[in-house]
Amino acid sequence: MSNPTAYQSLVDHQRDIALLGSTQAVLGWDQETQMPSDAVAHRAAQLGQLTRLTHQMQTDPRIGDWLDAAGNSDTDADQACNISYWRKGWDRATRMPEDLAVALSEASSVAMAAWQQARATDSFPEFAPHLETLVGLKRREAEAMGWPAGGEAWDALADEFDPGMTAASVSAVFTPLRSALVDLRASVPEQTTADISALKGLPVDQQTRFLKDLVARMGFSFDGGVMATSTHPFCTSLGAGDVRMTMRSDEDTLLTALGSSMHECGHALYEQGLPRVFAGQPRGAYNGLSIHESQSRLWENHVGRSKPFWEWFTGQIADEFALPGLDAEQLYRAVNRTEAGLIRVEADQATYDLHIMVRFELERALLNGDLKPSELPDAWNAHYRDYLGVTPDSNATGCLQDIHWSMGAMGYFPTYTLGNLYAAQLFDAARAALPALETQIASGDFAPLLAWLRTEIHDPGRLHSPSELCERVTGKALSAEPMLAHLGRLHGV
Amino acid sequence: MSNPTAYQSLVDHQRDIALLGSTQAVLGWDQETQMPSDAVAHRAAQLGQLTRLTHQMQTDPRIGDWLDAAGNSDTDADQACNISYWRKGWDRATRMPEDLAVALSEASSVAMAAWQQARATDSFPEFAPHLETLVGLKRREAEAMGWPAGGEAWDALADEFDPGMTAASVSAVFTPLRSALVDLRASVPEQTTADISALKGLPVDQQTRFLKDLVARMGFSFDGGVMATSTHPFCTSLGAGDVRMTMRSDEDTLLTALGSSMHECGHALYEQGLPRVFAGQPRGAYNGLSIHESQSRLWENHVGRSKPFWEWFTGQIADEFALPGLDAEQLYRAVNRTEAGLIRVEADQATYDLHIMVRFELERALLNGDLKPSELPDAWNAHYRDYLGVTPDSNATGCLQDIHWSMGAMGYFPTYTLGNLYAAQLFDAARAALPALETQIASGDFAPLLAWLRTEIHDPGRLHSPSELCERVTGKALSAEPMLAHLGRLHGV
Repeated sequence: MSNPTAYQSLVDHQRDIALLGSTQAVLGWDQETQMPSDAVAHRAAQLGQLTRLTHQMQTDPRIGDWLDAAGNSDTDADQACNISYWRKGWDRATRMPEDLAVALSEASSVAMAAWQQARATDSFPEFAPHLETLVGLKRREAEAMGWPAGGEAWDALADEFDPGMTAASVSAVFTPLRSALVDLRASVPEQTTADISALKGLPVDQQTRFLKDLVARMGFSFDGGVMATSTHPFCTSLGAGDVRMTMRSDEDTLLTALGSSMHECGHALYEQGLPRVFAGQPRGAYNGLSIHESQSRLWENHVGRSKPFWEWFTGQIADEFALPGLDAEQLYRAVNRTEAGLIRVEADQATYDLHIMVRFELERALLNGDLKPSELPDAWNAHYRDYLGVTPDSNATGCLQDIHWSMGAMGYFPTYTLGNLYAAQLFDAARAALPALETQIASGDFAPLLAWLRTEIHDPGRLHSPSELCERVTGKALSAEPMLAHLGRLHGV
Repeated sequence: MSNPTAYQSLVDHQRDIALLGSTQAVLGWDQETQMPSDAVAHRAAQLGQLTRLTHQMQTDPRIGDWLDAAGNSDTDADQACNISYWRKGWDRATRMPEDLAVALSEASSVAMAAWQQARATDSFPEFAPHLETLVGLKRREAEAMGWPAGGEAWDALADEFDPGMTAASVSAVFTPLRSALVDLRASVPEQTTADISALKGLPVDQQTRFLKDLVARMGFSFDGGVMATSTHPFCTSLGAGDVRMTMRSDEDTLLTALGSSMHECGHALYEQGLPRVFAGQPRGAYNGLSIHESQSRLWENHVGRSKPFWEWFTGQIADEFALPGLDAEQLYRAVNRTEAGLIRVEADQATYDLHIMVRFELERALLNGDLKPSELPDAWNAHYRDYLGVTPDSNATGCLQDIHWSMGAMGYFPTYTLGNLYAAQLFDAARAALPALETQIASGDFAPLLAWLRTEIHDPGRLHSPSELCERVTGKALSAEPMLAHLGRLHGV
């Protein structure tokens, strides 16, 4: 028996919740891109208030009744998708104490500012008490959510970022992947250093304009989005027709700014491609963070570090910056050079996932109480020695380099590596579907690839789970093979 | 008998209302400075939602009980000030139907975007239906608020901007002022044109940096504020420690950008100087729009167009832009040249208030139904011919030049002229209190003037009504004499 009234009530109510969430996103965007330092406390109060109002709407007891009524009625696939995610959100919201939600929002807002300050002055002790507060609050959150028998606190937090992901399942993928990546690194032939000095110190304004032109060519709509600058590049959706991304303003070489711009643009193209008709509903939302990351990595690594891309883009750089002597092969080698480094966002494809493994193990230990926040710098540095063979020379380039934990995002990092694996497997499928893909990229024509992604990944929203989507589009379950094969081809091993 | 519980409940509840209002201000700031065009509808929905939530909080029936209990108890002057303004707000809020509040918020958000488009393409018919909607809604608002016998709809709207202001009281000031300004204009000797071509086409980035240095020197704190760019310069407070102002990015001469920067900085200094201990309370809020405008005009006209200022600032420009041939006397003449023009924000001190009179009479007629929105361009142009002796060559430079009506701000314009009158009278008082003021300004030292304004105008917040404040600080009721005397000295008549 159908119950259209209950379903429509859910649609309206959840649209209101999403609308208020999008206002929180505006405050977050402004905080990262424009807000002055004296406003930290007031902004935390603003975010805390919206979190409190949102929590009240999310725990409105009518939701439970509507879900029961709508769930017992005939639904089409779109409606079933929405109901399933709303049910999940209802369970999470009713388990989350309101005071904890407010405390988390305010603590993370203050911690983000403290992190920016601590990173700028390389002063971990300034950040440590905030991290300790956040770990305590996140542990309380995990306990409120609960986890299946045999699991651990990390699982309860990770589920929000990628449904079903657990510390055990991540470990099962990470352990063999680590061996393969370490083997790969050992077998890559010694690389000569490409000379890219011509790309350093280019005028910042010109570099910004040039990269805006590139993302427009990739398909980013500036009528429906903004590209600004921030300390750490990111992408966020502020609602229908309003996708924002940033690039760093302090890059000293064009290649770094290029990589992060193509990365964030991949995220932004996904957000701009989500079906507008389902705006404010799970059916029209991004399909978990791993799939989101697959879109950024596909553009950054499989397009932006490919030979065909550099056949085209070398000429673009040469024309824009009046650098006639550039050599495509040398630039291609430069962007694919592999070397273990300290900074995750500057890491190459062959070492990036080792950075993720460090973070995964440490946040797991923090949440389980096996590691004290004050011990983080030593543990971080020891892991970097073990996995990457390098030792940070400061906490700013060590455990303070990422914004995530200061935002309260724990259980998040592994989605980057899963995103890398999805990206490689999806790009293989795109190549199979688009025989002229390399030729198109070599002429700066990205429209066919974007159209394929729109149809296969963006339009479906959350209709299928990430693993189902992967099987539908690529014909196979997610596997590390495509990425390892890609890296093998790249480095000729 | 004191009732501290009721008073404290009011403080907490009204702080929550102010907090949500400050989030609306963030959305407004972003809309004017960064938001992409496709986001218009979503942003209107976001603002509508916050307006609805705010209205619910403002009409919480407990407020009436708290006000009754707190009003019957012993209060100090600060508490009495708060209670009086909260009572006024309670009366307004309970008279405003919720559907009307939401409709106004959404209609003005959409109309602002339509106005920007119509102004850019000089297409009044694109804006006319939005204006018609807004006039209808504002008329409904005025009827809901009500006005005293013998008054009119305009009074009910104007009271929100400057308490007690009525169309009749404004007319009583404007009619003789108009004669005096017309006489003054007729008696100003013919002016030779100063050559300021050296100040045109300066690099935009350098001009921006230079003006940021100036506002910092005036006392603006960049730790507690931001200066960005927008179509129409404005200043807004987003909460404690967060005052934002804009300048136009398209100025072709430094002098125009200078005037609007000093103007907005005057507003910003007032906001930054309001007593933080009363943040979120009327006692700590600005004292009506006329006093707000007095602060911007004081800096723009009485400092920024004075001889001592140019004795100092000419050298600053010469050094920054490597223009050694600049002449202080010539620049002083250039910024004080009087000529009737089409654009309010570019008008000089002697003609500015005539622009205001046109707007006042037309919005009064629109609200009374004596003028149809479609007839606005003809009526506008006729008034400009009558008062200023000029005829707009397009609606973009005519009735589409200002953002105010598109925001739903009707009953607002006269506060500009009252602000001019307050500015002149306050600056006379500052000169009397600070004998070295001209010498200080001539050496770029603005700290003594700012300190005087902090004590006399900023610290008191809303403790006294605007007219009381004027009497306390200047010893006299507000009068047009100081401004007319100032203009007479300026033009030697």
